[in-house]
Amino acid sequence: MKIIIIGATGTIGKHVTAALEKEHEVLKAGSKSGDLQVDISSVESIENFYKAAGKFDALVCISGDGHFGPLASMKDADFRTGVNNKLMGQVNLVLIGQHYVNPKGSFTLTSGSLAEDPVILGANLSTLNGAINGFVTGAAIELENGVRINAVAPGVVEESPAYFPYFPGQIPVTMYRVTQAYVKSALGGQTGQVYKVF
Amino acid sequence: MKIIIIGATGTIGKHVTAALEKEHEVLKAGSKSGDLQVDISSVESIENFYKAAGKFDALVCISGDGHFGPLASMKDADFRTGVNNKLMGQVNLVLIGQHYVNPKGSFTLTSGSLAEDPVILGANLSTLNGAINGFVTGAAIELENGVRINAVAPGVVEESPAYFPYFPGQIPVTMYRVTQAYVKSALGGQTGQVYKVF
Repeated sequence: MKIIIIGATGTIGKHVTAALEKEHEVLKAGSKSGDLQVDISSVESIENFYKAAGKFDALVCISGDGHFGPLASMKDADFRTGVNNKLMGQVNLVLIGQHYVNPKGSFTLTSGSLAEDPVILGANLSTLNGAINGFVTGAAIELENGVRINAVAPGVVEESPAYFPYFPGQIPVTMYRVTQAYVKSALGGQTGQVYKVF
Repeated sequence: MKIIIIGATGTIGKHVTAALEKEHEVLKAGSKSGDLQVDISSVESIENFYKAAGKFDALVCISGDGHFGPLASMKDADFRTGVNNKLMGQVNLVLIGQHYVNPKGSFTLTSGSLAEDPVILGANLSTLNGAINGFVTGAAIELENGVRINAVAPGVVEESPAYFPYFPGQIPVTMYRVTQAYVKSALGGQTGQVYKVF
């Protein structure tokens, strides 16, 4: 199976890559590193990326920036930085990628716990995560040729201690659980699911 | 209590207006009709709208357009029409409106059933509805001075028969249930809730 991982060198991505490359051809992608570069906030970059990557069986996106900051001073422009990246970036990976993915292939996107378990400063990410969960739910019933789509919604992970102060009282999730959720989506048979790892 | 209703003359809005104006001062707003006009896809229009409306106790938004169409041919631009209107429109009503609302006031936004109960052609609306639900969840814990925020998530309503063919097998919800959810949000004490009426 040919699997594209966007964010392959990230905190989570490197573990998912390690888990999948044992038995599959993994094409590592990132904004600056990897076999191929892609700026998911740009439609043109995504189109060029898919043309270069060629047909594939699974795309896993473990990338996407949101805005983290106080609601009281949040502006339209702050909010849109996240919309343009984590939301529209992942949506466009599917809208465009549906024309490149092999039959019975899959898309695995990343949302997060904040859609349901909010933290202070996280209103933008709560929104983006809820949006990705909704998109996966809606897109799953329309993708053709047996193509599947799921989202993984991780909580704060054990290898990101810099984030712990922003998640008071939340028990960091193990990287093993998070990694397995991506593997389950890419290699399993389910579609339209949000795998909540928190 | 001074209550602003955006979409006051719409299918749902006229019922919510009728229910609330019995005992409250209701300022009716719409894109083209009402006491005040506002284009929620424009930050400038929202700012002018709040300046004209003055301080208020509750804002109820029963407006917001999404894109309805097949995923297979959906493009970034299609998707963004909904993002700019139903999502960013309602988000900006809160980001800007938080500086105009009275203490202990409230915002009530509109999402919809498609975030969880998708239909063919509805991937954009599934996304927008999930986003609004996430935003309400995240914003509720940061709004200051006791200001509350909730969303109402209606299914297809009994007074919109033109939509019935797109919702096969779904039992249309009564206007009474939908109206009461908006009233509950505006006059009740809860915050961070999504009232699912489907």
